[in-house]
Amino acid sequence: MEKESILLAYNKFKHQIKRGFYTNENTYILDEIYQQSLSVLQLMKREKLVSQVKNKRYFAFTDGKKISRAINEELYEPDYSQWIHLKEGMEENVLNHFSSVQIQKILYSMAISFCASIDLIKSRDQKTPGTFFEYFIAYFFSWRVGVEPQNYIQLQNLDEKIIKLPTDFIFNLGKNQKKFHMPVKISTRERSIMLWAHQRLIDSVYGREKFVGTPVIMTETKTSQSKKEVTEICLPVQWRVYQSYIAQLKRVYYLDVPEAYRELDKQSPPLIVKPFSEFFEEWQIL
Amino acid sequence: MEKESILLAYNKFKHQIKRGFYTNENTYILDEIYQQSLSVLQLMKREKLVSQVKNKRYFAFTDGKKISRAINEELYEPDYSQWIHLKEGMEENVLNHFSSVQIQKILYSMAISFCASIDLIKSRDQKTPGTFFEYFIAYFFSWRVGVEPQNYIQLQNLDEKIIKLPTDFIFNLGKNQKKFHMPVKISTRERSIMLWAHQRLIDSVYGREKFVGTPVIMTETKTSQSKKEVTEICLPVQWRVYQSYIAQLKRVYYLDVPEAYRELDKQSPPLIVKPFSEFFEEWQIL
Repeated sequence: MEKESILLAYNKFKHQIKRGFYTNENTYILDEIYQQSLSVLQLMKREKLVSQVKNKRYFAFTDGKKISRAINEELYEPDYSQWIHLKEGMEENVLNHFSSVQIQKILYSMAISFCASIDLIKSRDQKTPGTFFEYFIAYFFSWRVGVEPQNYIQLQNLDEKIIKLPTDFIFNLGKNQKKFHMPVKISTRERSIMLWAHQRLIDSVYGREKFVGTPVIMTETKTSQSKKEVTEICLPVQWRVYQSYIAQLKRVYYLDVPEAYRELDKQSPPLIVKPFSEFFEEWQIL
Repeated sequence: MEKESILLAYNKFKHQIKRGFYTNENTYILDEIYQQSLSVLQLMKREKLVSQVKNKRYFAFTDGKKISRAINEELYEPDYSQWIHLKEGMEENVLNHFSSVQIQKILYSMAISFCASIDLIKSRDQKTPGTFFEYFIAYFFSWRVGVEPQNYIQLQNLDEKIIKLPTDFIFNLGKNQKKFHMPVKISTRERSIMLWAHQRLIDSVYGREKFVGTPVIMTETKTSQSKKEVTEICLPVQWRVYQSYIAQLKRVYYLDVPEAYRELDKQSPPLIVKPFSEFFEEWQIL
């Protein structure tokens, strides 16, 4: 019953997204998806995981057979009423009464509740959580910056007509205004160089500092199914080298910030890795 | 029986590779792996696939339940004696009596026989074929250029001691001699930008044209399990843009060259995509 409802709501979301990200319909559907996810997870048991990540505790939901992805205990506060407050604040365009920690918890809880539900009701489905997370983040980003994203850039190569190149989300705030380049990923692991490569490509085509690179990632946790152990897969040395030699990302936002990336702001050029909720405060100064 | 032998031989290969790529031991083990793969596949049936790729026909091996990856009919000539001839030629360092088409067929048949065997005797194992293919290609590359590869570059960032950065294979032919940067992948799909990003990184650190970028890829085929249909996942527009704006790869070699990439040598800067066997003839002029 809940299984069908949640997938139905997700399909509605995918369908509506063609008409825009921050829309009344999508607010309604996200609300529905969150409620459905919470109903699915209410039927499940919590299983404590062994955390190999300093200062973080993780658990997973399980139906006895399958087990969900790891969930950060501190960030997970599946309080539906909090989302209702946030939604109302967004409608009035005022979020002053929320701390960024509160916002981070609401977004984390919504996103991971859906992903964990899919882990339990489907088998080896990576695509549904990935697509959902992309749309989910773009919904909030789009609300904050006030424009809808596009998924391509145009370039002119003189030999033929204009080439339309598919990209991650581009939010263009207008003529001579800021432009954000925002890849969204559940995790990056050994593919993280792609974030810098796409930024480099856009910098090469349009010139440096034309597009502000602000990828948003959920987490870098990995759970060993046999040992029920959670680790974070991080490549801080590589990230420093990418930021020095490939392109400069302005921020890398996470819903669950990996410990190993917090210190990268000390280097030169700095790489600032922080909670996505802080974007809501700082987006105008980026 | 064959199942165990082939995995045993593969484990020996993984173990021996720590002592070098082109070694007598590895020649012996590769021989064993090829024989074991052929025995496994002899017990299987061939199933014709629907090819959506112009001018190419594909089939797969099946045990009635599982089905292997797609195999190019024209390139697949699992003739063990051909490999023996090639092996002997390599030992004498003379391959003149082989055409590059013949060499391509021998390499393709060896590599895909192992991968197809693993598809059938294990479940959803992507890692074993991927690691095998990496070592397999490095074995031949190493024979041809006469040096062993390394898997890292060093860089100096002034603020601290030297950083050792893990990379794809680097073949350094000596002081003031050619240096090859060779990523090896079963397929690249939507991750292909990583080839150019790694080249860009190395170019940025060491200067342009210091390292010759020559990735080697098996194939870009994708088989729909339900429709038994083979397509090639290619992004020619993106590849042209990467070659113009991120870095220049000298060659992209394939064992099964995708049709859509053959025309990329017409553009400027050209991108030359060709059979891996041609490397054996042209490596000195790259």
